[in-house]
Amino acid sequence: MSEQISQAVIKRLPRYYRYLKEIEKRGEDRVSSFKMSEDMGLNASQIRRDLNCFGGFGQQGYGYSVEKLKKEIAHILGLDKRYNVIVVGAGRIGQALMGYDGFEKEAFHMQAIFDNDGGKVGMLVNGKPIMHTNDLSAYLKENKIDIAMLCIPKENAKQAAKFLADCGIKAIWNFAPIDVGEQNGVAVENVHLSDSLYVLSYKLDANQKRNENNDI
Amino acid sequence: MSEQISQAVIKRLPRYYRYLKEIEKRGEDRVSSFKMSEDMGLNASQIRRDLNCFGGFGQQGYGYSVEKLKKEIAHILGLDKRYNVIVVGAGRIGQALMGYDGFEKEAFHMQAIFDNDGGKVGMLVNGKPIMHTNDLSAYLKENKIDIAMLCIPKENAKQAAKFLADCGIKAIWNFAPIDVGEQNGVAVENVHLSDSLYVLSYKLDANQKRNENNDI
Repeated sequence: MSEQISQAVIKRLPRYYRYLKEIEKRGEDRVSSFKMSEDMGLNASQIRRDLNCFGGFGQQGYGYSVEKLKKEIAHILGLDKRYNVIVVGAGRIGQALMGYDGFEKEAFHMQAIFDNDGGKVGMLVNGKPIMHTNDLSAYLKENKIDIAMLCIPKENAKQAAKFLADCGIKAIWNFAPIDVGEQNGVAVENVHLSDSLYVLSYKLDANQKRNENNDI
Repeated sequence: MSEQISQAVIKRLPRYYRYLKEIEKRGEDRVSSFKMSEDMGLNASQIRRDLNCFGGFGQQGYGYSVEKLKKEIAHILGLDKRYNVIVVGAGRIGQALMGYDGFEKEAFHMQAIFDNDGGKVGMLVNGKPIMHTNDLSAYLKENKIDIAMLCIPKENAKQAAKFLADCGIKAIWNFAPIDVGEQNGVAVENVHLSDSLYVLSYKLDANQKRNENNDI
């Protein structure tokens, strides 16, 4: 069923998931689409349409069960599985990802971190020693790894992605500022941090223009 | 004029901007909406509609001038301005942002980095010494800073955002995994890295289900 859900809906699911985790932590066990739309700044009918895509659990006048809805979204996102993860590139971003505890609380289990700088090899990041990328291929033969977080300079990113795909990696989360295409059925998400900074500068600039106009 | 552009279009502009920078670097000086749609995996008529929002520069049969279109998008995004930036929080993410050269090549000029850990004060990040957050308020009185990149634990993020707004910061790029609301006309973009990881796990899971079905 989940394959019939549109990409646009999929992109909104993580936001619903985050929201539901937050209100669950606050002890709320039911939520209406109206309340969700108020809190999240989304259109209530869009929320209902989105949640209907996978059957929903809303009851007129009662709203949704927070726990059921959260579980269902986690299931659709594949977050009820367990993924073994490596980080390739032990620069600041790579080390930050390796050191982030939040992933372990979800489905993502950080196994090892690699770098091509011999000087870094053996240094501990979150208790794991940095390994040399020369040993990556052998490591991937011996260990079942699902996801690689790619944190290397953009010049080498496409080549590294191809190498990882050839070694049997199933998904690549790419932080190099260049798009790495999907290949051989490997799932890819390219992170473009700057995109959100550009939207911020748009908002900042728009606020300033508005203030200037008000001053006239 | 830019205020009439919808949020959905604004969100797509950074992607067009990135693409145009890339093909400009390759020496291409004209591009058609068809070529853009092929390269970017977007619908050509949506691209034309988006670019028409701000006048566009396309000529039937000739396409767009890469340079003009890039400049116009940069202008709309406020990237032809200069912004002074500080980083608040000198953990790995904060240090990674402070150390990233790409921002300086755009409109964003990294001025200083702050942390509340006295042990870190004075350590150099990209040539700038880490300053104590106790000195932040005085620093912001003496220096014109537009943007704060907020890289602190989520427990303190909302309070820190309010403090920064009160000190006259105009925009906050928030990396704490909690939504910091807009306040007093301060522009805010909340970065939720995990959202893209969840979409990746969706894709990975969907690929695996597809393979299992093919095996039957």
